[in-house]
Amino acid sequence: MSLSLNQWTTRRWTLAEAVDGCARHGLEAIGLWREKVAEHGLAAGAKLVREAGLRVSSLCRGGFLTAGALSAGEGRAALDDNRRAVDEAAELGAACLVMVVGGLPGVKPGEPLPDAFSRDVAGARERVAEALGVLAPYAGERGVRLALEPLHPIYCPDRAVLSTLGQALDLALAHPEEQVGVVVDTFHVWWDPALYDQIARAGSRIASYQVCDYLHPLPADVLLGRGMMGDGVIGFPPITRAVAAAGYTGDVEVEIFNADLWAADPDEVVATMKARYDSVVMA
Amino acid sequence: MSLSLNQWTTRRWTLAEAVDGCARHGLEAIGLWREKVAEHGLAAGAKLVREAGLRVSSLCRGGFLTAGALSAGEGRAALDDNRRAVDEAAELGAACLVMVVGGLPGVKPGEPLPDAFSRDVAGARERVAEALGVLAPYAGERGVRLALEPLHPIYCPDRAVLSTLGQALDLALAHPEEQVGVVVDTFHVWWDPALYDQIARAGSRIASYQVCDYLHPLPADVLLGRGMMGDGVIGFPPITRAVAAAGYTGDVEVEIFNADLWAADPDEVVATMKARYDSVVMA
Repeated sequence: MSLSLNQWTTRRWTLAEAVDGCARHGLEAIGLWREKVAEHGLAAGAKLVREAGLRVSSLCRGGFLTAGALSAGEGRAALDDNRRAVDEAAELGAACLVMVVGGLPGVKPGEPLPDAFSRDVAGARERVAEALGVLAPYAGERGVRLALEPLHPIYCPDRAVLSTLGQALDLALAHPEEQVGVVVDTFHVWWDPALYDQIARAGSRIASYQVCDYLHPLPADVLLGRGMMGDGVIGFPPITRAVAAAGYTGDVEVEIFNADLWAADPDEVVATMKARYDSVVMA
Repeated sequence: MSLSLNQWTTRRWTLAEAVDGCARHGLEAIGLWREKVAEHGLAAGAKLVREAGLRVSSLCRGGFLTAGALSAGEGRAALDDNRRAVDEAAELGAACLVMVVGGLPGVKPGEPLPDAFSRDVAGARERVAEALGVLAPYAGERGVRLALEPLHPIYCPDRAVLSTLGQALDLALAHPEEQVGVVVDTFHVWWDPALYDQIARAGSRIASYQVCDYLHPLPADVLLGRGMMGDGVIGFPPITRAVAAAGYTGDVEVEIFNADLWAADPDEVVATMKARYDSVVMA
């Protein structure tokens, strides 16, 4: 396994600055975000990363497929956007396209959900499965692997009705292995009593291993509860060992959403990340 | 099934006021908290509730068994306190003693966990199983049923390493049914992709069905993210039907921790609770 910088960890950096930072710190891989790539331009960004000799450990992200029927309106627009994300992942040579599948339809902060359709988490999950039936072969034709990311249940209302690794695997196994894999992100899965069984079950379906810590308490904006490894509650070594034992030999991406780290000097953040990777994640 | 007021929903009320409120609103059952009972006095409280003709749908709570070895110090003190909770549940004639098993040992708000022992969630879970081996027969001898409550994974750091209904059942099934059951609390389990399978598997192990809604976003103090049914994101009817189909015929307890509701007139809260029970939970 080898350390990769997910570029959202150093969010202030442009794509060019992040590529330069990886080179300066001796990193061999980078996790890209579509927004950052688009700012630079897709073709130029792909060329930049390629010429720097960096592997693209993932592209973030596709998904948000739960709003409604896939045949029209928001649902159809979401499918179209995911096809574009697949195309971008292909051009960038990304190891996978991370899929954050979407939450309950119609959820709005501070408001009760309006109807039974919105409250139907099982129905939202069915739409994800249906969308994968369209997107998996599309990705396969372009040599792109979709990576289904189970998110911590706290994000079930608004970001992902995919909540456990086991559930992600159930979805992935309906498709060829080279088309659909899963993400193991420590923040999202550390609490899961089935974690080790499901990592073993996942085996070569593990498309990405992402690490960051889980802060306690979470900040008011729970999206920013991701911390530098060692700053929270997660015991990394047994998870890392299990992922390795499952056969994963890919990059280990550090993806941290954290207001303090975003405000800090990105070079210092990367230096700390490298040190903590050795002392905390791989210990 | 019949509606029960968990007295923490009307937290401003003393035990006597809550008993009086139940009578005034035509409720047949109440969920009690040890603190509130202690304020009134255990024997007098038991008499008060009995003479009011109320069933005690649960006593909250035992648990917090993960701090360390059970043979000494905090661990032994926790076992002793749980035995006292069992004794109280017996005297009150409670249908069950709710068990919130405890989180990671040594967790402190805003501080990284200090060592591998603290970060060992699997180890904390083993201590819960070990403690149940002591407490289940103790409860059985006194006619008390322990009700293992899986809590939403957001509470895994500080309140309960018991995170899914399936995990609670795995623990419960090691003991006689009359000694150990499980709680199905909508707030904690609504997101679980295995929910319906596990409710069916639970069958007569369901010791308590608790309802409240899940607010989105959660407030900064996530403990207070419980809302009146209909104010959040949960679709209650399929969960209620599944619990009924599993054979549960006990009381349905409404347990809400919510700063706005605690500030409101308790009589209005109970009136709203009754209306929402009919229109939202049993719809």
